Amino acid sequence: MNAFTPTDRSKVKRLHERGRYDEATIFPILDAAFIAHVGYVIDGQPYVTPTAFWREGRVLYWHGSAASRMLRFQEAGVPACVTVTHLDGLVLARSGFHHSINYRSVMAFGTARLVADPAEEARQLDLFVDRLYPGRRGEIRGNEKQELKGTTVIMMEIEEASAKTRSGPPKDDDADYALGCWAGVIPLAQVVGEAQADPKLTPGIAFPSGLADYVPGARFDAVLTACAGKLG
Amino acid sequence: MNAFTPTDRSKVKRLHERGRYDEATIFPILDAAFIAHVGYVIDGQPYVTPTAFWREGRVLYWHGSAASRMLRFQEAGVPACVTVTHLDGLVLARSGFHHSINYRSVMAFGTARLVADPAEEARQLDLFVDRLYPGRRGEIRGNEKQELKGTTVIMMEIEEASAKTRSGPPKDDDADYALGCWAGVIPLAQVVGEAQADPKLTPGIAFPSGLADYVPGARFDAVLTACAGKLG
Repeated sequence: MNAFTPTDRSKVKRLHERGRYDEATIFPILDAAFIAHVGYVIDGQPYVTPTAFWREGRVLYWHGSAASRMLRFQEAGVPACVTVTHLDGLVLARSGFHHSINYRSVMAFGTARLVADPAEEARQLDLFVDRLYPGRRGEIRGNEKQELKGTTVIMMEIEEASAKTRSGPPKDDDADYALGCWAGVIPLAQVVGEAQADPKLTPGIAFPSGLADYVPGARFDAVLTACAGKLG
Repeated sequence: MNAFTPTDRSKVKRLHERGRYDEATIFPILDAAFIAHVGYVIDGQPYVTPTAFWREGRVLYWHGSAASRMLRFQEAGVPACVTVTHLDGLVLARSGFHHSINYRSVMAFGTARLVADPAEEARQLDLFVDRLYPGRRGEIRGNEKQELKGTTVIMMEIEEASAKTRSGPPKDDDADYALGCWAGVIPLAQVVGEAQADPKLTPGIAFPSGLADYVPGARFDAVLTACAGKLG
């Protein structure tokens, strides 16, 4: 089993039985997600920026304008923490203390660096589109030189990562099961809605067949997992 | 209009026309959310921890075990960044470059501190339950002394905050509207599922009437907003 080696930085301390360090747990949580929260430090001040991200092997990527503060400061290579969270449900117990959350989360640590090679930058941006929208690159206009110049891709090889998850019903104190209150789980999921065509769309253009996984009502985490699975 | 005064720390630099600093924009984004990503620094290393949070006025609160690393280090009062993100949709444009995301996000800055007064700590934990689950405190067992001792509540008065949002259809380069590809928005929303009773639930106990907003199919952000609106 491929696994990350936790140090004090990534070791799950609180409820450590919920912690996992193996790729087989961590990668699916990452691949089912679209938004990560990237933490970095400027002059002792922490910043947490939400950003779309993608993964290739043990490396996480994200992008933005070459002008953005986060990316400007990260070009030199700075310590970063990339956190991904899926909220799966509210856990209602028979005491306030035992109320909980069902979730899947990953904290990944590494050094965020600029992808300096223009060819690799262009390849990663293609991978980002392919990872989200199978077949779409064949239908849209390709990137122009000045667009690539105005875009920065950041990479972070994962040095350490931990996953933390909870699932299942509440766990109450023995004596509390006799209480007359309802207990259980209210599931939560991020769901795809009905696609809204651009008001300026030329009439007669259908929703792309390559995006067939984006069915209204589908779970977005499942769609993302399916799309990632279609990569060559 | 009540607003936060941005400094270099919170000023939205990238696509600054998407930035807002007024409470009337920021508070509803916070109150529609359940999970925040809290950034803090230990020995130069950034950490981003997902956590449930709640708001009272200009103060954000979160809690955890008194043993957790994040809370242990924050007791002294440390700089923190609390970020909240709603992912509202994928924006598919006619070029890779103009693909975008519809979202509502807030970055809030301040100093995270321990809520040291036990009475205030207990009041805040009650507020947390009331904010999520109207009427539930009257049905469950109250907190016991040793439970409160084992729980830490952290507060962060917002010193600065900015909101950043995008909504609406793609914006393409003029020449690209003639392309034959589909363009538009795939909406995304976090949605409530069918409540799952605890397998150990005493038969005959119904789902609480106080939680009537948690209807299967309801948007969780709307439920949270409604519940926050019921606070005294």
